Amino acid sequence: MSGATPDRDPTTARRRGRPPRSEAGDTRERILAAAREEFSERGYEKTSVRGIAKAAGVDSALVHHYFGTKEQVFEAVALTLAPALNATPGVADGPLEEAGERLTRFLFGLWENPVYRAPLLAVVRSAVNNETAAAVFRRMIVTQVLSRVAGRLDAPDAELRAELAAAQLVGCAMLRYVIKMEPLASADVEQVIARLAPVVQGHLTGA
Amino acid sequence: MSGATPDRDPTTARRRGRPPRSEAGDTRERILAAAREEFSERGYEKTSVRGIAKAAGVDSALVHHYFGTKEQVFEAVALTLAPALNATPGVADGPLEEAGERLTRFLFGLWENPVYRAPLLAVVRSAVNNETAAAVFRRMIVTQVLSRVAGRLDAPDAELRAELAAAQLVGCAMLRYVIKMEPLASADVEQVIARLAPVVQGHLTGA
Repeated sequence: MSGATPDRDPTTARRRGRPPRSEAGDTRERILAAAREEFSERGYEKTSVRGIAKAAGVDSALVHHYFGTKEQVFEAVALTLAPALNATPGVADGPLEEAGERLTRFLFGLWENPVYRAPLLAVVRSAVNNETAAAVFRRMIVTQVLSRVAGRLDAPDAELRAELAAAQLVGCAMLRYVIKMEPLASADVEQVIARLAPVVQGHLTGA
Repeated sequence: MSGATPDRDPTTARRRGRPPRSEAGDTRERILAAAREEFSERGYEKTSVRGIAKAAGVDSALVHHYFGTKEQVFEAVALTLAPALNATPGVADGPLEEAGERLTRFLFGLWENPVYRAPLLAVVRSAVNNETAAAVFRRMIVTQVLSRVAGRLDAPDAELRAELAAAQLVGCAMLRYVIKMEPLASADVEQVIARLAPVVQGHLTGA
């Protein structure tokens, strides 16, 4: 584990032009998938590097080699949401009077997508129970999404507006996907979006 | 532990007319306080009857004697919110056009009250990570609060409306008190209520 391979860190390992399916890449992806499952099912506290290694069928040392500490593994799991979050310039750009609808569609698009559901659950379950994970959640939501939206608003309370809008969306995701409260959990997603988009818009640009 | 005292269960022990500060009552309260701390700090999964007993300075058997299983201890902790939730008829009653403000004030009144903050954190942290706790949360929110509010609404989608209103409030409580996202976490509570009350009202009675 001492032979450092500096290009194995979460960012550069995904760099364009690298062979995507090397054996090392497979191992890394297998560990990442196991970590995603562990964090989403157990939350941050109960998940261990050892448990992740076991689920991936590798030695714990290999988890440390590819990712570092448990916190860093968690960050890598949260980073699997990055391609989606990097789509948010599109959410923050465009006509401001439609930002509510774009933001609402974006959030539900993520949760309804099986690829993102597990890492989202992992981040939410962990953030609620652990300060380290909560910090990752705050960074992710604030820097990737809310600050871009708030930056568009011409209001002294832009950040608070963006956070109250986020509160509506996060709360709805909680009750629908995590707590599974009926009839919300089974409601048609388009119906839910139609209800929430004007509310989110109101928070952002309302009087 | 064999001498069963059937009137020590969570409901009857709070019956009017009983001496409130018997020695047994003290022990029971001490266990309950320890359970509240354990559940709110660790969440449902990581909390054990043994850990609760240790924190309360009693034998595990005594925890089982007073409360039963871990699930039942958790229900008892959630029940400490009952006096507050039983105040919700007042929330659900009164002029319908002010229901949004009453519900919003009620929710933030709970979270801002040190007596209720810990059990609320316990229920939220646990509900997000565990199906048993999620069921307690659903029962508590739906039967104690939302169904009473929905019952007042003359709309075919009354339950969905009440849940979307709850989503705004739950989401705001999450970001403010659990995730501690700024500036929302430090915002004046009256300012937050002023922003959310019309939104909650809109969900309940809007077009």
